[in-house]
Amino acid sequence: MRQSPPQRVVVLAEGAWGGPDAKTGIGFVRYGHDSAVAILDSSQAGGNARELLGPRFDIPIVASLEETDRFRPTVLLIGVANAGGYLPDGWMPAIRGALRRGMEVWNGLHLFFGAIPELVELEHRHGGRIVDLRRPPAELHVASGRRHLPGRHVVLTVGTDCAIGKMTVALELRHAAREAGLRAAFVPTGQTGMVIDGWGVTVDRVPSDFVAGVMEDLVAQAEETADWIFVEGQGSLDHPAYSGVTLSILHGSQPHGLILCDEPTRTERKGWEGYPIDHDLARVARLHEQVAGLVAPARTVGIALDTRELDDPGARRAIAEAEWRTGLVADDVLRHGPARLFAALRERLAAPGTAAGAAVGGDRRERGDA
Amino acid sequence: MRQSPPQRVVVLAEGAWGGPDAKTGIGFVRYGHDSAVAILDSSQAGGNARELLGPRFDIPIVASLEETDRFRPTVLLIGVANAGGYLPDGWMPAIRGALRRGMEVWNGLHLFFGAIPELVELEHRHGGRIVDLRRPPAELHVASGRRHLPGRHVVLTVGTDCAIGKMTVALELRHAAREAGLRAAFVPTGQTGMVIDGWGVTVDRVPSDFVAGVMEDLVAQAEETADWIFVEGQGSLDHPAYSGVTLSILHGSQPHGLILCDEPTRTERKGWEGYPIDHDLARVARLHEQVAGLVAPARTVGIALDTRELDDPGARRAIAEAEWRTGLVADDVLRHGPARLFAALRERLAAPGTAAGAAVGGDRRERGDA
Repeated sequence: MRQSPPQRVVVLAEGAWGGPDAKTGIGFVRYGHDSAVAILDSSQAGGNARELLGPRFDIPIVASLEETDRFRPTVLLIGVANAGGYLPDGWMPAIRGALRRGMEVWNGLHLFFGAIPELVELEHRHGGRIVDLRRPPAELHVASGRRHLPGRHVVLTVGTDCAIGKMTVALELRHAAREAGLRAAFVPTGQTGMVIDGWGVTVDRVPSDFVAGVMEDLVAQAEETADWIFVEGQGSLDHPAYSGVTLSILHGSQPHGLILCDEPTRTERKGWEGYPIDHDLARVARLHEQVAGLVAPARTVGIALDTRELDDPGARRAIAEAEWRTGLVADDVLRHGPARLFAALRERLAAPGTAAGAAVGGDRRERGDA
Repeated sequence: MRQSPPQRVVVLAEGAWGGPDAKTGIGFVRYGHDSAVAILDSSQAGGNARELLGPRFDIPIVASLEETDRFRPTVLLIGVANAGGYLPDGWMPAIRGALRRGMEVWNGLHLFFGAIPELVELEHRHGGRIVDLRRPPAELHVASGRRHLPGRHVVLTVGTDCAIGKMTVALELRHAAREAGLRAAFVPTGQTGMVIDGWGVTVDRVPSDFVAGVMEDLVAQAEETADWIFVEGQGSLDHPAYSGVTLSILHGSQPHGLILCDEPTRTERKGWEGYPIDHDLARVARLHEQVAGLVAPARTVGIALDTRELDDPGARRAIAEAEWRTGLVADDVLRHGPARLFAALRERLAAPGTAAGAAVGGDRRERGDA
């Protein structure tokens, strides 16, 4: 986990800023430990990030890398996560330019820049650094079934689909814990989380045998400096493509508490026609507890809704309905903040004498009933 | 799926033949499409495979590669699957010798021989071939949620632990289907299955995002030539290290039927103390159906027991108890053959008008209840 001084980052989002593929760049601007100094998108040059993200985010959009020199940038971030993870056309000049300036280049694509001889040559000649975020750790091992240190509270965000707010909710909950004066950490499991927090592993690229082991290591690292640990989930247990990644994270991180993320207005999985999303949140919550419990007990503590498609009364109705149907606290952390969900976690996981409180560091051998 | 003439294979098991690490070599000798002509283990030179495997397996154990020349071998198989997947000490001379003879070297270790310059050089100079079985396919994609062709019956072996007979049971069931005159295929998902059947992917080495996609491709390939498809499972849904691999196989292959493998005398997971094995087979079977049903409905059709630690009356009692507790057909396929389990599959999956028969190619959208 990094302690270094913040970097000054140019977000490369040429032709893509504000669109769905720009989620790495947008997530970084919104939550990054490091500071974004400029966004590079010639199609929106002259604009400002504040138009999309609100007045707190006064970051100019520029047409070329040269225009960012006045900010003395130290990093170029590849700000897209596109389908397939390939390099968009026309992005190479900015990447070359950054390496010629001795900057770091942070790349979350499936295409590794460290495998492109021309870029490696520029890296070595000018003293920059290529960071291929999706490259798995060199040392891999299978999970051992490690237990948590006493007094730690591990919370995992899970969801009814991909791209449904799991990273955002984990970050907002960490913020709430820190606001409460607690030692709290975020465990990044994808490339966007990694650029935001400066550490972690993109687990979808790790050979499947080792994903649970990677999760054990990440959580162990977080436990060294934090008591509250918010793990970023990936995929969903019922997703035809990604369920295995989801389960490896669930069993490898052995969370005490789960926050279930849902977007009530989403119906079908994008790209997977015929696979509707299960919005029966009580059932989905029970399923997660049961499957987690095969390795270590976990309880679903709250529901995080993404209500972006609803107006304010509609959002309040959706939240009330989720609470009524599950008996759990529900909220939209972007609309109303993370305070209510974090209060629920504190009450359910940290209170002495509660079952989950007792489970921390205690006997974790009990099994979920199938 | 291979149609080539059988290879003549030397099994390299130096110092290991008959021990637990030799499972790749033993599995190959017992079930391989290709023929083993000799076993190389100087510590047992002069012996014969028949001492371990029975009179059908008349294969000499020799002390050196030179002694195998009279068999005109075409392949050297690295016959161990050791923990960590590293090359045992002292094996390099035999590997070099095989490549100098222009033989193929089949390697299921995590260590890729194609990454060792000296071996690559020998391969090119002498016209041999290095086959690193664990190397993932070059083309990877995420699962699409593909449905099966009409009339196909896909059966997956699952289990209460690792190394509990999933590959063996799948192979025995294919044998039973072929004996019945049916078109049947085996889908290898590990390195031993691959050397036995000459195709497949070792899915534990595939980046986790792509395991379900690989499974879709393998099953689609099998459906081109077979009506009955027996998929080799890996790990178990409740294993702290491998559950994600297991779930990717379950959701990626979308089986119609499951055969649940168990060893009733095994108590704890080896290497994972504090993680007992759940022998409540009715519960484990329901759990698998429920989790599979998140993507496509599957039914548990039978129980395959490994009763090696029991005498004959004890084995019969264990089988009867499993049948009584689950209401399913149970048997030990090595002790009694696969006929009863295959008959159960035929009755439950292939009979017209049954629910599972109807599910084949029909509406697969129904979901398991959590």
